[in-house]
Amino acid sequence: KDVKIAILPGDGIGPEIMDEAVRVLNALDENFEMEWADVGGAGYAAHGHPLPEGTLKLAKEADAVLFGAVGDFKYDTLERSLRPEQAILGLRKNLKLFANLRPAILYPELAGASTLKPEVVSGLDLLIVRELTGDIYFGQPRGHREAPDGPFKGAREGFDTMRYAEPEIRRIAHIGFQTAQKRGKRLTSVDKANVLETSQLWREIVIDVSKDYPDVKLDHMYVDNAAMQLVRAPKELDVILTGNIFGDILSDAAAMLTGSIGMLPSASLDENNKGLYEPSHGSAPDIAGKGIANPLAQILSAAMMLRYSLNRGEQADRIEKAVKKVLADGLRTGDIYEEGTKRVGTREMGDAVVAAL
Amino acid sequence: KDVKIAILPGDGIGPEIMDEAVRVLNALDENFEMEWADVGGAGYAAHGHPLPEGTLKLAKEADAVLFGAVGDFKYDTLERSLRPEQAILGLRKNLKLFANLRPAILYPELAGASTLKPEVVSGLDLLIVRELTGDIYFGQPRGHREAPDGPFKGAREGFDTMRYAEPEIRRIAHIGFQTAQKRGKRLTSVDKANVLETSQLWREIVIDVSKDYPDVKLDHMYVDNAAMQLVRAPKELDVILTGNIFGDILSDAAAMLTGSIGMLPSASLDENNKGLYEPSHGSAPDIAGKGIANPLAQILSAAMMLRYSLNRGEQADRIEKAVKKVLADGLRTGDIYEEGTKRVGTREMGDAVVAAL
Ligand SMILES: [Mg+2]
Ligand SMILES: [Mg+2]
Repeated sequence: KDVKIAILPGDGIGPEIMDEAVRVLNALDENFEMEWADVGGAGYAAHGHPLPEGTLKLAKEADAVLFGAVGDFKYDTLERSLRPEQAILGLRKNLKLFANLRPAILYPELAGASTLKPEVVSGLDLLIVRELTGDIYFGQPRGHREAPDGPFKGAREGFDTMRYAEPEIRRIAHIGFQTAQKRGKRLTSVDKANVLETSQLWREIVIDVSKDYPDVKLDHMYVDNAAMQLVRAPKELDVILTGNIFGDILSDAAAMLTGSIGMLPSASLDENNKGLYEPSHGSAPDIAGKGIANPLAQILSAAMMLRYSLNRGEQADRIEKAVKKVLADGLRTGDIYEEGTKRVGTREMGDAVVAAL
Repeated sequence: KDVKIAILPGDGIGPEIMDEAVRVLNALDENFEMEWADVGGAGYAAHGHPLPEGTLKLAKEADAVLFGAVGDFKYDTLERSLRPEQAILGLRKNLKLFANLRPAILYPELAGASTLKPEVVSGLDLLIVRELTGDIYFGQPRGHREAPDGPFKGAREGFDTMRYAEPEIRRIAHIGFQTAQKRGKRLTSVDKANVLETSQLWREIVIDVSKDYPDVKLDHMYVDNAAMQLVRAPKELDVILTGNIFGDILSDAAAMLTGSIGMLPSASLDENNKGLYEPSHGSAPDIAGKGIANPLAQILSAAMMLRYSLNRGEQADRIEKAVKKVLADGLRTGDIYEEGTKRVGTREMGDAVVAAL
């Protein structure tokens, strides 16, 4: 076998949508070894931990991880360290996944779902590359204290530290430029360099890294302006490179532009482009087991895996084209159903994608 | 005279749109004393400084400041401290204006200008209350250094400090609740309390302050979710209370929802509701002196001044209703012109608002 893929279906609708993604992968005529393991609530139920040792070992030795979704009402009362969501945090940390890739794609057939006018968003295809392990979400020191100085000296205050080190910016910038090379060869770096020292270093290093990618056109945008441009003319953007907190805000806004989060895949990569791939949506335990969940974000996550970790861009293209075809043919699961289209279940949707390959 | 208003027209289209706002104020039959002074490029040209001493003195002794816009190509080569924009920074600092109020209003007649579907944004009327003098934009320490610890210890890093002290949160929260009392009695506090220590204190203090305002319904939203909700269903929001950096991002996104920034006023308030009022748009030197600029944001800034600093909410209502009427009557300056409406100049638009009072 050429390639080993860890298959972690998780909870809720995870297993049923994962089945369809695996069927699509199997239909590609590649020599993939796939190995299943429990994760999230399923990991806790079977092994007493959301990220069981065997699951982590598998994820580490695999070439890529295809992840479903985790979480279920029945685990809500567990203590924090045993909750299903800890699985994804543990995987990110242990696999050193510092680059989060979140596409916001709106197929013309689904443009009606957006709150934006069709001419503004139809055909949207942008990608946010977000640094995932640094920035103010992790920077030390942080806490509550008596203000040591400033206009409110002596008062109780909360504080956090935004920090980015040069090598940390450099490695995410490389991912940004390499991603842009695989797409439209344009990269928009988002920062707040007119105000923040961290952003000034960010911009300096991104410009330095750009010298290695003369074929990619780099520009810079302040984060408040980027939030405006996402609303004004999102189709003018291609790849956005940004830090953890700005990426958190902008990637959620960009996803919402499409109006159908159930369609969006995502990736988290390490320094060697090994990655974890998962739908942006959750485990939807309320509809689990009914055969009505939308498997397309999971299938598109498999396509991202082929492109970014397994160096099989043509196979990724095949899957994405097949998804476009089933949408053009009018097939819809309940979450994206509109009058005049054909409502299908999870399995039927998977069948159609396999047939369209 | 009951009330003294400092009138600072500034540069570009500032003087001509200010003329119309003053005519509207004069038409109210109030006993206002108005005194003019140079600011921005005009201040530099007349007195060698963008915020001349006499202008600052007037702004300090006045009950409110009505500000036009500053900036012109011809001052672009001046050193930073003499540039027109320094005037507004100097006024904020000297007058201790820590609360920024930015409405995002979309009159149904102008709904076509938005990139969002009319049913999603038509009639939008939300207000962002943003803290303006603290947060990571001003927090010390900040700079570039060798990382003292962490996973990149020893590497060059950029860093900034997010900080909010209890009294600082308390005073902006009071403004937020009082603003909500003047509107729909609902307040959405936006933070990132699931990750940031600063936000945890923010949320704790906002909840504490809410006890003084039992008539206002308070809820909380994470900033990434707020960015999504602005796109998904902006009309469900009324008053948003947030810190400096989140407010910077969200208020620009909210303004862009309307598609016509030339229509939006803004206010910056101190602890006693004394404030500076200005349009959100700039000085547009390219169209200055042609009599075609849209005076409505300036006129609506005067209305905000009546409501928030001069305790004349009924007069503010009169002006806002008059603006609605001229729009309903089909009058449009060039920036908001659409087929089937009547194109008018700056003066004609001012005349129409005065007539509609
Ligand atoms: Mg988020
Ligand atoms: Mg801004």
